[in-house]
Amino acid sequence: MFPLPDPMRLALDAARQAGQAGEVPVGAVVMRQGEVIATGANAPRRLHDPTAHAEIQAIRAAAARLGRDRLEDCDLWVTLEPCAMCAGAIAHARIARLYYAASDPKGGAVEHGPRFFAQPTCHHRPDIYSGMGEGEAAGLLRDFFTARR
Amino acid sequence: MFPLPDPMRLALDAARQAGQAGEVPVGAVVMRQGEVIATGANAPRRLHDPTAHAEIQAIRAAAARLGRDRLEDCDLWVTLEPCAMCAGAIAHARIARLYYAASDPKGGAVEHGPRFFAQPTCHHRPDIYSGMGEGEAAGLLRDFFTARR
Repeated sequence: MFPLPDPMRLALDAARQAGQAGEVPVGAVVMRQGEVIATGANAPRRLHDPTAHAEIQAIRAAAARLGRDRLEDCDLWVTLEPCAMCAGAIAHARIARLYYAASDPKGGAVEHGPRFFAQPTCHHRPDIYSGMGEGEAAGLLRDFFTARR
Repeated sequence: MFPLPDPMRLALDAARQAGQAGEVPVGAVVMRQGEVIATGANAPRRLHDPTAHAEIQAIRAAAARLGRDRLEDCDLWVTLEPCAMCAGAIAHARIARLYYAASDPKGGAVEHGPRFFAQPTCHHRPDIYSGMGEGEAAGLLRDFFTARR
């Protein structure tokens, strides 16, 4: 086993915090040149904001911090395959590399459903890497939904 | 010619304001039981927020105003066919009816590209009505991009 890269470790920490706050445990981190620019935790219920997925939170915070709406020199690390909303935001933000841990057959839009980045109408496609930390990321989700039943 | 419904007139006004502010002219309105709950204008550059499309702005403002993350009793009116990001947000927000004016072959995700709401992984599909006000909405966009060239 290789050790998990630090950004995915941070994203998993954010996911765990989301779960402890009663939100579906998904976390995300925006990195630039080895520096953490922003983290995001899933929080639609707490924030009364249906768009407050971890990726959107991290991208908005990173763009605000850098003072621009394009993050072409930034990478996004997230614990779950992005949905269509978040995949669209990743394209709009011009994220360079997307790293995600667990795949999401039910709501994912990268390798499932709309397969957004493979559409001819998609105007920006990041380099995509998946699977790192997927066991831990999926375990957090499984434990969360088991406890809710 | 039928007169344009008031919510689309408001969305077109918001689009025009976006264009005057140097943003791609798209506007949106969230309605509930005949009442305007929130308006949104496209503003990613001004706000340094790649997610700040008109629909996202209107949905976030409506959810904040109503104090909840689901808007199942609300309708969204927007001047342009939503992109994948905004279509995903519409589904997450459980918007009841979607009205859009102009279609968008380049970036739309309702009748083009990912056709998000037709995907089996889409967990909520609003009733969809399109075309009302499309000439005016498309004209605003055409004039904007012509002036930029």
